[in-house]
Amino acid sequence: MSASDAGGVHLVGDQAVSRFVGLSTFLHAPYQPDLQGIDIALAGIPYDFQSGRGSARLGPSQVREMSRLVRQITMGGVAPFELCRIADVGDSATNPMDPRKSVELATEFVTRIADTGATVVAVGGDHGATYPILKGLVRNGPVGLIHFDAHPDTYDDPFGGFVTHGNAIRLAIEDGIVDPTRTISLGIHGSRFIKTDRDYHADHGMRLVTIDEFTQLGVEGTLEEVRRVVGEGPTYITVDVDVLDTPFAMGTGSPEPGGFSMREILNLLRGMHGLDIIGGDVMEVAPPFDSDGQTALCAANIMHEIVAATALAIDRRRESLVDAATTAASGAQ
Amino acid sequence: MSASDAGGVHLVGDQAVSRFVGLSTFLHAPYQPDLQGIDIALAGIPYDFQSGRGSARLGPSQVREMSRLVRQITMGGVAPFELCRIADVGDSATNPMDPRKSVELATEFVTRIADTGATVVAVGGDHGATYPILKGLVRNGPVGLIHFDAHPDTYDDPFGGFVTHGNAIRLAIEDGIVDPTRTISLGIHGSRFIKTDRDYHADHGMRLVTIDEFTQLGVEGTLEEVRRVVGEGPTYITVDVDVLDTPFAMGTGSPEPGGFSMREILNLLRGMHGLDIIGGDVMEVAPPFDSDGQTALCAANIMHEIVAATALAIDRRRESLVDAATTAASGAQ
Amino acid sequence: MSASDAGGVHLVGDQAVSRFVGLSTFLHAPYQPDLQGIDIALAGIPYDFQSGRGSARLGPSQVREMSRLVRQITMGGVAPFELCRIADVGDSATNPMDPRKSVELATEFVTRIADTGATVVAVGGDHGATYPILKGLVRNGPVGLIHFDAHPDTYDDPFGGFVTHGNAIRLAIEDGIVDPTRTISLGIHGSRFIKTDRDYHADHGMRLVTIDEFTQLGVEGTLEEVRRVVGEGPTYITVDVDVLDTPFAMGTGSPEPGGFSMREILNLLRGMHGLDIIGGDVMEVAPPFDSDGQTALCAANIMHEIVAATALAIDRRRESLVDAATTAASGAQ
Amino acid sequence: MSASDAGGVHLVGDQAVSRFVGLSTFLHAPYQPDLQGIDIALAGIPYDFQSGRGSARLGPSQVREMSRLVRQITMGGVAPFELCRIADVGDSATNPMDPRKSVELATEFVTRIADTGATVVAVGGDHGATYPILKGLVRNGPVGLIHFDAHPDTYDDPFGGFVTHGNAIRLAIEDGIVDPTRTISLGIHGSRFIKTDRDYHADHGMRLVTIDEFTQLGVEGTLEEVRRVVGEGPTYITVDVDVLDTPFAMGTGSPEPGGFSMREILNLLRGMHGLDIIGGDVMEVAPPFDSDGQTALCAANIMHEIVAATALAIDRRRESLVDAATTAASGAQ
Amino acid sequence: MSASDAGGVHLVGDQAVSRFVGLSTFLHAPYQPDLQGIDIALAGIPYDFQSGRGSARLGPSQVREMSRLVRQITMGGVAPFELCRIADVGDSATNPMDPRKSVELATEFVTRIADTGATVVAVGGDHGATYPILKGLVRNGPVGLIHFDAHPDTYDDPFGGFVTHGNAIRLAIEDGIVDPTRTISLGIHGSRFIKTDRDYHADHGMRLVTIDEFTQLGVEGTLEEVRRVVGEGPTYITVDVDVLDTPFAMGTGSPEPGGFSMREILNLLRGMHGLDIIGGDVMEVAPPFDSDGQTALCAANIMHEIVAATALAIDRRRESLVDAATTAASGAQ
Amino acid sequence: MSASDAGGVHLVGDQAVSRFVGLSTFLHAPYQPDLQGIDIALAGIPYDFQSGRGSARLGPSQVREMSRLVRQITMGGVAPFELCRIADVGDSATNPMDPRKSVELATEFVTRIADTGATVVAVGGDHGATYPILKGLVRNGPVGLIHFDAHPDTYDDPFGGFVTHGNAIRLAIEDGIVDPTRTISLGIHGSRFIKTDRDYHADHGMRLVTIDEFTQLGVEGTLEEVRRVVGEGPTYITVDVDVLDTPFAMGTGSPEPGGFSMREILNLLRGMHGLDIIGGDVMEVAPPFDSDGQTALCAANIMHEIVAATALAIDRRRESLVDAATTAASGAQ
Repeated sequence: MSASDAGGVHLVGDQAVSRFVGLSTFLHAPYQPDLQGIDIALAGIPYDFQSGRGSARLGPSQVREMSRLVRQITMGGVAPFELCRIADVGDSATNPMDPRKSVELATEFVTRIADTGATVVAVGGDHGATYPILKGLVRNGPVGLIHFDAHPDTYDDPFGGFVTHGNAIRLAIEDGIVDPTRTISLGIHGSRFIKTDRDYHADHGMRLVTIDEFTQLGVEGTLEEVRRVVGEGPTYITVDVDVLDTPFAMGTGSPEPGGFSMREILNLLRGMHGLDIIGGDVMEVAPPFDSDGQTALCAANIMHEIVAATALAIDRRRESLVDAATTAASGAQ
Repeated sequence: MSASDAGGVHLVGDQAVSRFVGLSTFLHAPYQPDLQGIDIALAGIPYDFQSGRGSARLGPSQVREMSRLVRQITMGGVAPFELCRIADVGDSATNPMDPRKSVELATEFVTRIADTGATVVAVGGDHGATYPILKGLVRNGPVGLIHFDAHPDTYDDPFGGFVTHGNAIRLAIEDGIVDPTRTISLGIHGSRFIKTDRDYHADHGMRLVTIDEFTQLGVEGTLEEVRRVVGEGPTYITVDVDVLDTPFAMGTGSPEPGGFSMREILNLLRGMHGLDIIGGDVMEVAPPFDSDGQTALCAANIMHEIVAATALAIDRRRESLVDAATTAASGAQ
Repeated sequence: MSASDAGGVHLVGDQAVSRFVGLSTFLHAPYQPDLQGIDIALAGIPYDFQSGRGSARLGPSQVREMSRLVRQITMGGVAPFELCRIADVGDSATNPMDPRKSVELATEFVTRIADTGATVVAVGGDHGATYPILKGLVRNGPVGLIHFDAHPDTYDDPFGGFVTHGNAIRLAIEDGIVDPTRTISLGIHGSRFIKTDRDYHADHGMRLVTIDEFTQLGVEGTLEEVRRVVGEGPTYITVDVDVLDTPFAMGTGSPEPGGFSMREILNLLRGMHGLDIIGGDVMEVAPPFDSDGQTALCAANIMHEIVAATALAIDRRRESLVDAATTAASGAQ
Repeated sequence: MSASDAGGVHLVGDQAVSRFVGLSTFLHAPYQPDLQGIDIALAGIPYDFQSGRGSARLGPSQVREMSRLVRQITMGGVAPFELCRIADVGDSATNPMDPRKSVELATEFVTRIADTGATVVAVGGDHGATYPILKGLVRNGPVGLIHFDAHPDTYDDPFGGFVTHGNAIRLAIEDGIVDPTRTISLGIHGSRFIKTDRDYHADHGMRLVTIDEFTQLGVEGTLEEVRRVVGEGPTYITVDVDVLDTPFAMGTGSPEPGGFSMREILNLLRGMHGLDIIGGDVMEVAPPFDSDGQTALCAANIMHEIVAATALAIDRRRESLVDAATTAASGAQ
Repeated sequence: MSASDAGGVHLVGDQAVSRFVGLSTFLHAPYQPDLQGIDIALAGIPYDFQSGRGSARLGPSQVREMSRLVRQITMGGVAPFELCRIADVGDSATNPMDPRKSVELATEFVTRIADTGATVVAVGGDHGATYPILKGLVRNGPVGLIHFDAHPDTYDDPFGGFVTHGNAIRLAIEDGIVDPTRTISLGIHGSRFIKTDRDYHADHGMRLVTIDEFTQLGVEGTLEEVRRVVGEGPTYITVDVDVLDTPFAMGTGSPEPGGFSMREILNLLRGMHGLDIIGGDVMEVAPPFDSDGQTALCAANIMHEIVAATALAIDRRRESLVDAATTAASGAQ
Repeated sequence: MSASDAGGVHLVGDQAVSRFVGLSTFLHAPYQPDLQGIDIALAGIPYDFQSGRGSARLGPSQVREMSRLVRQITMGGVAPFELCRIADVGDSATNPMDPRKSVELATEFVTRIADTGATVVAVGGDHGATYPILKGLVRNGPVGLIHFDAHPDTYDDPFGGFVTHGNAIRLAIEDGIVDPTRTISLGIHGSRFIKTDRDYHADHGMRLVTIDEFTQLGVEGTLEEVRRVVGEGPTYITVDVDVLDTPFAMGTGSPEPGGFSMREILNLLRGMHGLDIIGGDVMEVAPPFDSDGQTALCAANIMHEIVAATALAIDRRRESLVDAATTAASGAQ
């Protein structure tokens, strides 16, 4: 099989096929709701609660549509679809009138995927959904976390223990799913409700890099910090698209001028290829505020890089097994 | 299984599920690219040629997305999904650089569907695609045709025999697929390139009802004309969305102020329930000009009514067979 | 004080002032959150639950903005601001994470208004909010109800007794706030989840006029039905903007092609001037889907007519009191 | 020369040419700023004053762009470009900081056109520009006026004698350019600043048909009124696009729900073909509020019908001259 | 009182309240048109003249709406609402048909505010309004000026002494309100009408930093220049949003690609915290060209930083007074 | 003649004229379809083939409209309209149903221009049109090429030798029109169809600078590479707007996050002023995806800089001739 840009088409066999043919799936992946034989499940978590102005429950559909524009090999030359079996497995069910039920349903959905041995790269939905994803996915917890966001998301919860888009990460830490000392929050910026909103990070040994510190460190310096913090252990990536500057991400609930450019975030993500990435998510795309689809397009490209990093890690683990097996075999001689 | 409007959800079993969960398919139909066990195949024909300003090749994807808003029972109480097995079978392949190849691919795609015994309700794509659809679908031709359009679409062809959005109907007649004397064009309006653009209709015994004549006849009078012209034989419905007035259909290549309202066209379509409808199509939705999705939403509702009419006809044919069988059986006694 | 259209300005004293000066309030009404000395309180109920695609919680703000375009005298020559003291009293508090709390807060908010002797014309928010409004407003219930909607809104509730945008009217009836036999639903149209969705109406003596029956009855015939059903008793008007055809109301959660035009609904509302209107609401404006503000503009014009009808009724009641007092006085002589 | 719809192209000679080639001109007319040899000059008057929210000074450019979609023969089969020499002559100069200067410049511009013997069909700009157009055009005054508008536009002037979009018609009457007894205002609707805004009409023998009276009279009854009022004398047509219902004309300074549909206004305009139309204008297209170009497209179609009516009248006058000459010639024999 | 991001809400007492409740005011400030007890008055100047394509008179309303998304503490941790009494005082009256009158009205409006001892942070309106603001605000002669703009705004005036958006700063200098030697213009970029457009700066000792010089100096280097030029004296900040790059500010009359990013301008503004800022403005937001509200959102964030800088300066002045009083008191011992 | 920014106007003589008056032409250039006496012809090539989602055939019209916002002197102070005779010569004819014919027509159109001795700065249309432009323009064999693009555009052609937007540069090289060793591609970024898509560059000695390499080199380092590669020979500039980052260029067929900012590309283009630029083009503006016109505005500014570079080169060549003549003359003494 070969492919070509001539006419914005894929070649399937010797047949040129437009990228605009067929149902919208994440990154043109095949649709496999039966979850059979998958390494990386691309999944939607289409719920949000009525916080802010957002409508992130509509995000997965728009990200699927805009990912028609993403070609299957990354700019850096990584071909995740050659490294792994990747499929769009559809969306978690949600109960729009019952937030708690929706969280349960998402947890079950991801659990079912993880039970097959696959991992997940998900699209939200509001950022609260990172909690059920991690809960369903992480088995030998706690994992490291690379957290892109305009906001710390470790707010105290005024709603009696319920996960919201402002406290998912805190709950994941308190449940022992995420290791705070292996957590780094990148790109924090924007105006603030309270002056103490970064205290939880400080109190729990979490690393917080504001956009201003990033400007000083640069991409490379920031990547060094990331590597220092998360180390070699298994690590999850979560991206709230409001970490991006507003020209890239007006289509979100809380747009905050002054965030990352796509060039910056793509270089940061590409710099994570050597890490042991176990999956990730891109959250808070709110299509009604994204009339030209740019936020969803950026989310699709970010998803692509997370998938690439995850696929490389899977591939490395396989090779280690093979190496180990080879070593064992030769040792057995 | 029951369902409810409370919260804009479907009940699947006892579980409330949002209409915004899952991949976009036509009318929430299940996705069945394998074509197995289907009575009515909902299909996209995503090509257009660079005529006018349109980008109708993007139409099927947008109609799928907006059909999330269509509930499965029509306003008139017809439940096509209870009457028939209906599935979204995906899109025809297209070769964007080779119009003639795209027409061939569409013909083959519909032929393959028709070979299974299913019929087609299609979404375009430009109106030229009605020709390959009819070619693939009609086996014991010629059929009657109910044609909604702002323009007559029986232009002479200055391009050497190639099907375009301006001559598909003419070619279908010349190929003996459509019976001109059982053809009625409804809603013709808008400014004109040439004064003789209605002559082909007159010369071939085709009935042409301008929007002004419709205003005089009313819905009921127009339906009488439709019934008189197409009679009881098999009849195909083709709708160019530019037949609608511009507030409903700016999202098309040639919007023409002064067309049908949705209330009018829905009543016309509902009035066709007793006819022997064998399938149909909705064409020329051009999403880049349809920023709020209204044109696609109207197309999805029109598709729903064509599906309903087709399902009722299928159901009637089955009952006739049963009746005939019963009669035969009782005659055999 | 005089006023002029020259330059789209108001004259305040001898000073021409643009309609674009100052904070946005409903219909240019003064802002009076202290609720003092008001006959008609214009109020926002900015909550919605995550049903469908809507974001109706943002509706009041957009309707305020677009009501800059509404002049203070209706087309028919009614000047409600001369007949009554009318003010914008702001919005109900809401708790975005707790639907039940939001309903309570809205009930308290309207109760506080009604306690001052004022009535309410409200803007939602989702249609579920009609329930707390009626609960706070109606003291000597049950009242008559004129209900404009694409959907019957008398669905059974799958969520354990909670008010949603699909069952507010049913709950109001079951609570004895609305008299089903003095209720008329106008403009029902659009596709349906279940065939039995109109049964509650039939079973409880409620009048339901579909858009097709309206087409047959015409404005005058429909008004006769309205007058016959609601009679001379106190009557509330509730308008779900999805009753409008989609060109007027794409900015809503469940747009349904084939509804009322604004000319039709304005004539219906003007025909209700003789009734004993006690207040009303306009619901389900979803600004993220209303990029040019047309839905909000239509809602503002509808609000204006409801305010006019309410003001006329208040004025008539006052005159009756004066007449009665005069009669009593003269009787006392 | 022939032409075809196949591919949305014009044939120029034997060459198919897309409608999207070349500079935007009104109705694809040739650009002739030298004013030579023209019967009907299509002209822009790109000024507005900062009234309301409008930006009508940008109107001519957007109407030119959207008139790419108008074909040169009307729906009714009139071919104005065959009857007359028609050209786009460009725009009046304007001085954006000096309203009075802009009015002078527009008067001079139209005077220069009229001096060549041509007439004008103009696109605004705000409705105040009808005054300088009439002043430049009308030589043997007063003329009849057919006035489409949501508002009476005969307001008193609070700005010391200056023409605004609210008093152009009144000033034209007071200057003796327009005959009030041969003036009819059609489609008046929308909310009002003052109750006396229709008094000037009543006091000066002007006919005012509200949208409600139009609904009763119908198209034919209204046309009878038009013919009765303007008679056989020379008559100018002015259209404020806010006379249209908002789905057709949100792109204007004062959109008013409940106006004409395009089907209605096109039928009214076509019904004026027998009158002695001497030119006309379409005003108040405000492109920043017309994101999909629908208002400009409607304006272009309305312009097309006014041009057709004007061309027919010119043609009739020529034939009368020929007839008179023939008669004279034969009498001379 | 505490607050939280959980659900995008404010806590008022123990009640979670959505940011979308209530009338739109600048930065959620209380509305106090009576001007009582205010340190910083947030004010709108809603006029523009018909220059360019802009409609900046609609700017204040859109900036109010988008400032719902701004939280009350800046990214840098400054809490202006804790430091000062801040209120939205509404808008200046304007006379849309009389530019000179509008300028007078704005001058009077700001004078009235300044008379109470408050200062102003204003939102325009076109950039000409900086002149009446400065005229009303500045009492003790020439102040320093930090001027963000794509254009020098010191054009000669072809309109006979009238203030326009191109000469406000020049007029303020010529009136002795602004000290040219304490003026710095930042971010000048974009194409130019005349080559001499920077001569006025050079001739009057004003500092002009083009975007290219900024690129070389960096944020810190530029701040040094700012501090050097304006020194310790009272200084006003004026921001024309066209200084921003177009992705942040298409919603303005003269968008010029190649300007500041929000990250850059926010860092510049934060770097001005130590200066004696006496107020400021943000001008030229043109909402009709800002369909997603991004320009208004950026303007709201810029306003927030100017308010913070102003509040810090007020606080410092108070402390100096206290210190002085303490010193005086201790000296008196 | 002088000009001023006061009011966004041009002064023509002593008359202030708005930039919004008159037909839209590229950069306000006079319209001269007769091609007489022109040094630089600004031309549109309005065709595209149905690849991807683009509608670049509509690009020239939108770039003309948005170039109203570009003033005639560049930021750097170059006044091309003073250096050269520059005119808008209209568009190439195209045959929308026949790609090959459209390419021929474009070749002929440019040939006709080049025959007059003028050069071309063109606006597309899809990037395939660079091939016929070069074919019509280049007379004395291979020229240098500065190529801005997200993609290499040297794909192999699966369509039998036909020029598409993916292989124009390769065909120009294979035809000997472009010298690969004097070709530099700048800003390559975005996801990829095939890993070998940069091999043609490597194999033919073409220089390819990815966006990441640009980040390392900076503007100055990149310009050094440009100068090294193209040298002093005649050089053409071609810009695919998808080389820009998506906030500047969502209005294109293949938007790719992570490209150049306008500040970067403008500085690169200004750095090419000393080169022997012979013309250029800006391609792939797709107006239906560019609702606020930002992509077209950026294209107009880029066009302006290419025109400036071309005008400077023409001026230098003239001066060389004069110098040579002078030298020859003095040598002849």
